[in-house]
Amino acid sequence: MKIYLAGPDVFLPDAVEIGRRKVAICARHGVTGLYPLDNEVDLKTSDASLQIFRGNEAMMEEASAIIANLTPFRGPGADAGTAYELGHMAARKKLCLGYSNDPAVYADRVRRFTTVTSRDGRLIDADGVMIEDFGLNDNLMMIHALDLYGCPLVTPRQRPDDIWHDLTAFEMCVRAAASRLVERI
Amino acid sequence: MKIYLAGPDVFLPDAVEIGRRKVAICARHGVTGLYPLDNEVDLKTSDASLQIFRGNEAMMEEASAIIANLTPFRGPGADAGTAYELGHMAARKKLCLGYSNDPAVYADRVRRFTTVTSRDGRLIDADGVMIEDFGLNDNLMMIHALDLYGCPLVTPRQRPDDIWHDLTAFEMCVRAAASRLVERI
Repeated sequence: MKIYLAGPDVFLPDAVEIGRRKVAICARHGVTGLYPLDNEVDLKTSDASLQIFRGNEAMMEEASAIIANLTPFRGPGADAGTAYELGHMAARKKLCLGYSNDPAVYADRVRRFTTVTSRDGRLIDADGVMIEDFGLNDNLMMIHALDLYGCPLVTPRQRPDDIWHDLTAFEMCVRAAASRLVERI
Repeated sequence: MKIYLAGPDVFLPDAVEIGRRKVAICARHGVTGLYPLDNEVDLKTSDASLQIFRGNEAMMEEASAIIANLTPFRGPGADAGTAYELGHMAARKKLCLGYSNDPAVYADRVRRFTTVTSRDGRLIDADGVMIEDFGLNDNLMMIHALDLYGCPLVTPRQRPDDIWHDLTAFEMCVRAAASRLVERI
């Protein structure tokens, strides 16, 4: 049973090693992790980014499930590429799981980047732009996709010291996926 | 012919008015714009966010196309909720269009938020995290989805003074969608 391992992990300095660890955790739970960097891409060619796109899409096609790393990336919210892939898998009715190693609700994370005030009972940022304030960890499209098409977002009780290398929440997703996928057989 | 109008526009102070303008532009080109805020949701109920999710999903189901506003939102990249919806529509093989009112390439936009250096020939941010550097406007999953499933990302030559209210690039998407949808009939 194959699970697509989405997330901004691929941008980390030790992206390949993190992929190996994630795939090994999957194997321990009897499932196969498909990690984007395992696609062979010649980065020197002019269409390298298109090759990556096609490789990722083929992996998603092959997988029965996705585990999306929604830990905030370069801002208060999830990586947009990962969000795209979660939307893709939800639309294909695949099993959708995800985790965020930052357990704070979205509105509180926005406070780290901008001054948050209230206008007409709604939270707004310094530009006057409304902040989603439903007590959710991130944008409602991603959070409710997980609720409805897999398992609710997995978060640690406390933010781990190393949000990019702590794979406890990831492993909880793998365990949940493995048991769900067995049920589906 | 119905087009789902995705974007962080819904968070702007004049979100309703922007929706009206977008829907009116669609009408002028003979297509129907579906704007998320036109779903009726009782924001006072405890499941308001789930109602919004279901409303947006139903609108996407109803639409033959999406026009995603990928103008950077609270950071260097697109709004994750919009990215999710683009992924959903791409996976359903709907016609995918999008625009960004910030024509800068992604790597240059990251420079506005963090110090960018180079390591082993790759751009990295202040945290040592790799920056996608394919000369694209945003994450390759979104950009190539537009290339393959609709029209290449529409951007203005110059960033308009008001990136949230200038609808020139949006109207170019509507025009492209209207002509493509006619071809499909």
